Amino acid sequence: MNVAVLAHEKFPGRAKTAVGVLRYTDDDVVAVLDRENAGTRTTDHVEDVQDAPVVASMDEIAEDEAVDALVIGIAPIGGGFDESWRADVRTALERGCDVHAGLHYFLEDDEEFAALAAEHDCELWDVRKPPTDLGVADGSAADVDATVVATVGTDCSVGKMTATRELYEAAREAGMDAAFAATGQTGILIEGAGIPVDRVVSDFAAGATERLVVEAAAEHDYVFVEGQASLVHPAYSGVTASIVHGARPDYLVLCHEAGRESVHGYDQDLPPVSSFPERYETFAAPVCDATLAGGMLNTRSTESDADARDAVAEFSETIGAPADDPVRFGPDSVLEVIR
Amino acid sequence: MNVAVLAHEKFPGRAKTAVGVLRYTDDDVVAVLDRENAGTRTTDHVEDVQDAPVVASMDEIAEDEAVDALVIGIAPIGGGFDESWRADVRTALERGCDVHAGLHYFLEDDEEFAALAAEHDCELWDVRKPPTDLGVADGSAADVDATVVATVGTDCSVGKMTATRELYEAAREAGMDAAFAATGQTGILIEGAGIPVDRVVSDFAAGATERLVVEAAAEHDYVFVEGQASLVHPAYSGVTASIVHGARPDYLVLCHEAGRESVHGYDQDLPPVSSFPERYETFAAPVCDATLAGGMLNTRSTESDADARDAVAEFSETIGAPADDPVRFGPDSVLEVIR
Repeated sequence: MNVAVLAHEKFPGRAKTAVGVLRYTDDDVVAVLDRENAGTRTTDHVEDVQDAPVVASMDEIAEDEAVDALVIGIAPIGGGFDESWRADVRTALERGCDVHAGLHYFLEDDEEFAALAAEHDCELWDVRKPPTDLGVADGSAADVDATVVATVGTDCSVGKMTATRELYEAAREAGMDAAFAATGQTGILIEGAGIPVDRVVSDFAAGATERLVVEAAAEHDYVFVEGQASLVHPAYSGVTASIVHGARPDYLVLCHEAGRESVHGYDQDLPPVSSFPERYETFAAPVCDATLAGGMLNTRSTESDADARDAVAEFSETIGAPADDPVRFGPDSVLEVIR
Repeated sequence: MNVAVLAHEKFPGRAKTAVGVLRYTDDDVVAVLDRENAGTRTTDHVEDVQDAPVVASMDEIAEDEAVDALVIGIAPIGGGFDESWRADVRTALERGCDVHAGLHYFLEDDEEFAALAAEHDCELWDVRKPPTDLGVADGSAADVDATVVATVGTDCSVGKMTATRELYEAAREAGMDAAFAATGQTGILIEGAGIPVDRVVSDFAAGATERLVVEAAAEHDYVFVEGQASLVHPAYSGVTASIVHGARPDYLVLCHEAGRESVHGYDQDLPPVSSFPERYETFAAPVCDATLAGGMLNTRSTESDADARDAVAEFSETIGAPADDPVRFGPDSVLEVIR
């Protein structure tokens, strides 16, 4: 499938979804839309991603270039739709492209987009809209045969989706029969399936995670569950709690960003990183026997590989378990514990 | 206001909401509807509740008796509407009564009820329908001047709503300027206001609790927050987490039922009761400084007051803090810590 990725004025630093898609999708990215970086290429900005041109708008993509879908690769605070994107979405639909979005604003509720999609036989896929038939967790994740691994974090935006995806891909490369259970919009956009657990009614959030795990475990030997937020987060800890207890993981992988000392966007210090392994294991324990397999350190703000290696070694010592930077050095030492 | 309470075939043992309303509402209960117990009185079945006749149907309530609202006081598993209740709801609306319900099935989405309510100028109040303008917690509960007290539990259905309500009422009787922040359907039906946090999208569950606390704290010196579920619950721990971090309580009150050793409805032992104070304080700590004020023990299955007193004393010793049975003996020793 050929996709274009919209990331106006935010690529790459504030376009987490766009970068995730560029790094992990099996699709071919024909262009990234960013009017501020038009004329450059994706690889001018980020390493380890698919190379593609950055263009100013859908109109800049040649008419004879097949584009199957436009992916909205950014989300403003609050998840709204920015009207400056409307022309591109309109053009995409008029060209017959599907549009995939992870916004709180649902494209299918937009009258113009709904009409255009119907007229041109395109699909509007609002990945943040959860299934309507979810229910309360019944504990069935306890009975699966697969080994279940869940990422957890010290904070939001430390790299849980990336770490989970890297573990999943490395596992498959190593010949393990692995599945990726996507719980957030970027993971769902990359995987093409999943449930946005943060958008599920809180009574059903563990049940939604349980469903993902049970379904994946029926087909695979290993299930890598994308974690969300953090047990110490003042707004989203309930999402984290629901994922840990709903998934009933055998292994936890702790994700952290080097240098992060306070909760992003809140006036709150993080507890010592050394406290997190016990914090998560103790939280999980009444429901499931989850052991820390290791840690994943995000060293994106560290210049040199040597310094990054030192940071990873220090993180490993702090948490008392193997650690990797999955993007920079690969997730192999943690994967070794799991397999 | 005069209310009738529907509890067919479930009063009192499986009619938690009906009993809560009978015990705590300021309204006058003119009758409880239970076709299996018709001819008895509420006080034949439960102590410490408003006395009212139990009748077979709305038709048994004299035409000249004013009834302002019919409250649905039971909820089957799954929260559906039982068709055997339809005649009573229809009669109530035809008599001009409002209907209040805490079901997952929304009465206002029922075509017949919606039409009857419009025709007879009645209100259908689905208390389990959350507000549509909720958002992410921003931490503002940290800045309130009021003393915030949240109940937490070892499990579901151990008496958190009751304990919270008893603390709130005792506080007011003692001259404290107290508010009750209702987070579940029974509490909301009793209080006439609140947000059903278990029905809120999980990203916004802490934000919903925060709103309740900030609004109540603007008007009162003490805010008693109704807790939900338990941090060790396999399905609902996310709701608990969101309430504790959203409310940012100064004090926690641990609720437990004497003799409860496993999670109700699940194949899972409860951890030792002695582990809960640290479990909750440690969970709260990164977000707020919450101290255990004491415990509330539900001794409903204990026959004698003497045995109940022994159980409360043992519970107090186990948790290392004052404890009460709020229904049997009042909540005064815990309230003393808070005031």
